[in-house]
Amino acid sequence: MQRQFEQELRELKNRILAMGGLVEQSIEKATHTLQTKEKSGLTALRAIERKINEEHIAIDSLCLEVLARLSPVAADLRLILAIIKINTDLERMGDQAMNIGYNTEHYIEDGGIDLQESLKLNLPTMATAVRKMVRDALDAFMKGDTVLAQKVLESDDEVDSYKNNIFDTLVTFMRTKPDQIGSALDLILVARNLERMGDHATNIAEDVIFACTGEDVRHGVGGHGNE
Amino acid sequence: MQRQFEQELRELKNRILAMGGLVEQSIEKATHTLQTKEKSGLTALRAIERKINEEHIAIDSLCLEVLARLSPVAADLRLILAIIKINTDLERMGDQAMNIGYNTEHYIEDGGIDLQESLKLNLPTMATAVRKMVRDALDAFMKGDTVLAQKVLESDDEVDSYKNNIFDTLVTFMRTKPDQIGSALDLILVARNLERMGDHATNIAEDVIFACTGEDVRHGVGGHGNE
Repeated sequence: MQRQFEQELRELKNRILAMGGLVEQSIEKATHTLQTKEKSGLTALRAIERKINEEHIAIDSLCLEVLARLSPVAADLRLILAIIKINTDLERMGDQAMNIGYNTEHYIEDGGIDLQESLKLNLPTMATAVRKMVRDALDAFMKGDTVLAQKVLESDDEVDSYKNNIFDTLVTFMRTKPDQIGSALDLILVARNLERMGDHATNIAEDVIFACTGEDVRHGVGGHGNE
Repeated sequence: MQRQFEQELRELKNRILAMGGLVEQSIEKATHTLQTKEKSGLTALRAIERKINEEHIAIDSLCLEVLARLSPVAADLRLILAIIKINTDLERMGDQAMNIGYNTEHYIEDGGIDLQESLKLNLPTMATAVRKMVRDALDAFMKGDTVLAQKVLESDDEVDSYKNNIFDTLVTFMRTKPDQIGSALDLILVARNLERMGDHATNIAEDVIFACTGEDVRHGVGGHGNE
């Protein structure tokens, strides 16, 4: 029984890792589309999101089956529940990447000057930081590394500070160029989408800590009432 | 064993219902604060969020215990997993209500004219629609009513259309009053927070349908790639 559980767990972990890879791809594709303003990127993004959604359902259903068939307890049970939650957060990150896509589409259609370029916004750097959070959170999960998971929690502040910076720059810009307000708002919403992705990575890191230690760090000291 | 499960399930369902009540309160408190612009509302909001967070952890831990102790299968297992997911969505709705609070705080501090009043924005109506979604979703959960759950999925479109309407009004306003851009942006973000709460209610309705029928309606025809 335990050996069979280990086998199923390995399969589930690998699939979660692969799904994390898809989420990383979706962040990359979304921000690349924002920079190149080529609408074809949106089609590619949609294809990635579809794959993420399929995996989401498949992983969820596999977890249900493992719980029903092997009735794991203690640390094993916590691991499966962590996978169910991580799976949900990854799927919602895919939704957020898609939302970046929609905001980018709007931004392209507004067809104004390239604010991302002219204002030297930190959006690409922010996107890179969020991608790193996802990778580190899943790396922490695969290795059961709570120190790395803790680092992910801390790096959420960095992402938030990028967002604040981008917000300030764009609001100031809006005041001087009322005709560009639509485009600026699109980018504000993209920054918000990226911030939300960082929050999901934070949730994953918290689940990793709970799965490894049984300790619930959500809402606690140093916890992030994020979303 | 089955009788004990039924007992635990009843307890869990009642706690989820009570948590839904807290979430409704938080929406009410957040929008009331926006309308009265009295900062004391934020302290009350914080107290509600703290209760939501405590319940979140307690319910999660009770679910884990029930799974470990009673190893439910089939429909019973689906119900417990639905509770775990609904619990997460409710907690994140609490976070969103808190975010409305932060955006409202900013709005009060900006101290401009009362846009909510002068532009006759639909924010209070939108908030009422979102509250109804939460109540209906949990009602559907308590009664195992998939028809009502389906209605919740459909009413998400109404909430989205309120949001679009509010966005359009505020963006148009921003163009004519660049000095009020900060306040207008605060309200745009509040509308976004409410929309996200509607998405969470949608997630809950989907979980209810899955728990009742074993049918996964996420990402499917008529599904909402929300978030």
